[in-house]
Amino acid sequence: MMRHIKIAGYGSYLPRNVFEFNGETRYRCNGEETQLDMAEKAALRALENAGMKIEDIDCIVSAGAVMLQPLPCSAALIHERIAKGTCIPAMDINTTCTSFISALDTMSYLIEDGRYGNVLIISSDIASEGLNEDQKESYTLFSDGACAVIISKSDDPDQGVVGSMIRTYSEGVHATEIRGGGTLRTAMKYREEDRADYQFDMKGKPIFSLCTKKLPGMFKEFEEEFGVSVNDVDLIIPHQASRVLPFIMKILKIDEDKYVNRVSELGNMVSVSVPYVLCEMIESGRLKKGSRVILCGTAAGLTCNILLLNL
Amino acid sequence: MMRHIKIAGYGSYLPRNVFEFNGETRYRCNGEETQLDMAEKAALRALENAGMKIEDIDCIVSAGAVMLQPLPCSAALIHERIAKGTCIPAMDINTTCTSFISALDTMSYLIEDGRYGNVLIISSDIASEGLNEDQKESYTLFSDGACAVIISKSDDPDQGVVGSMIRTYSEGVHATEIRGGGTLRTAMKYREEDRADYQFDMKGKPIFSLCTKKLPGMFKEFEEEFGVSVNDVDLIIPHQASRVLPFIMKILKIDEDKYVNRVSELGNMVSVSVPYVLCEMIESGRLKKGSRVILCGTAAGLTCNILLLNL
Repeated sequence: MMRHIKIAGYGSYLPRNVFEFNGETRYRCNGEETQLDMAEKAALRALENAGMKIEDIDCIVSAGAVMLQPLPCSAALIHERIAKGTCIPAMDINTTCTSFISALDTMSYLIEDGRYGNVLIISSDIASEGLNEDQKESYTLFSDGACAVIISKSDDPDQGVVGSMIRTYSEGVHATEIRGGGTLRTAMKYREEDRADYQFDMKGKPIFSLCTKKLPGMFKEFEEEFGVSVNDVDLIIPHQASRVLPFIMKILKIDEDKYVNRVSELGNMVSVSVPYVLCEMIESGRLKKGSRVILCGTAAGLTCNILLLNL
Repeated sequence: MMRHIKIAGYGSYLPRNVFEFNGETRYRCNGEETQLDMAEKAALRALENAGMKIEDIDCIVSAGAVMLQPLPCSAALIHERIAKGTCIPAMDINTTCTSFISALDTMSYLIEDGRYGNVLIISSDIASEGLNEDQKESYTLFSDGACAVIISKSDDPDQGVVGSMIRTYSEGVHATEIRGGGTLRTAMKYREEDRADYQFDMKGKPIFSLCTKKLPGMFKEFEEEFGVSVNDVDLIIPHQASRVLPFIMKILKIDEDKYVNRVSELGNMVSVSVPYVLCEMIESGRLKKGSRVILCGTAAGLTCNILLLNL
């Protein structure tokens, strides 16, 4: 069933340090700025953009990929920065790179029901803390950043989440991972010689192969279930996963002018890519009230999300 | 609005290693068994108890406190163990110790809407991997374990989640934490002399003080909002946070025979306590169809949950 929500405000943040790799631009924190700092900045900008105070927010959701601390959840730590003294609930929703889409998807039901009026979703990720210099492909691919979006109840019967689908294909679970730092291999077991096990590890080929096998069928089912042809929407915002994005889009038969590719200018921003580009497109006017946009992407898992949103 | 769900199956798992501290019993893994192993065992037991196959599940939610790996989310790693080859979506929902209540709360909306028919929620936590021997209170308090619950759509108009409330008071965010292992202090910065920063750190007094300040008002508002007196329900299952549970219950004016205290026999099982005790009470017959039960608790954050469920 359609969930009637609108985007009431948004805010993004990029760190100032700029790197160039093969003519492509990446943004990275300077070693002092943290994932939490970026989350705070994006959240405050979203509140300002919405003309809201923190007291107007009914729930804070952290939708990042990698946690700030093993305990407590990241949303509670963000709460301390932006909502201390209030009793706004703070919760993490995580499907790795597609966490923002999953959080938007999930929380839209609670807004439709009336549980919450305004939900602040914050995606912040700092890939630079975990990159492995020996893996050139991923080392040169990622940017740090944050984006926050406030979603609110809409009274417009045509506005909101029309349909959404999430699927996990765990054949790909070890193709993208950081093995060390959780309970399976705690930080206390860290040894310098095992450094790579505590860093980001991406195997591009098996992911690409799994995507080409699974995505076409999933998109077809999405089109059938929600009576939409993906090329008929106004814009498709895929997760900016890598430089092979155009190949994936071609396999999905998505027209070149129909989707946004900002990998050269922004890199892969983990959970931040989708909301960041969404906000860029709203800011530039390419998306406006009435636009139909598909948010989609593949995440470590391998988890795939597709969501159709009428703005 | 009420969300019509029922518990279709459940399964729990305790590790075999038993410890006694001051006459109280704790269960701990042996250093080989992992948080993931426990999650798998509980999930398989829940499926068997429900008479379901994994193909009957529409969504897998990991509702543990501490993650298995920094990346991907824990649900994807559990998916590999119990659902490989399927495309069931896998997602983490985290409010630390109350993650199970938050997951049940959140997913009940998706079931009520018809998005999913059967949702498998798995809480698994392995406190023993992160305890600090120098903090006797927490070192002797925790048990490892796992519990999985399958929630399904109910056609009974009286069955389901009647009401729920989550609040976060981030004044208490540093009273319960593991500071190292996430991006704020990565595993790669680990040094033996900073070991305590990568271990569980609990400051009992400020948590107790914050609870006594905030909980009575929250419970009163819950009672007013949902037209219920907590002492009129059949049973209250609080998070088995610590040995001061009776003092907190007394402050909340909850009758002694109305709530379950299994701290002596089970310890604090982090996110597992609430579902574990819930399943014990169903198994023993103390809770049955028609029973009204309140699940509640405080979590690192400080996050407080209250949820009224008609079984």
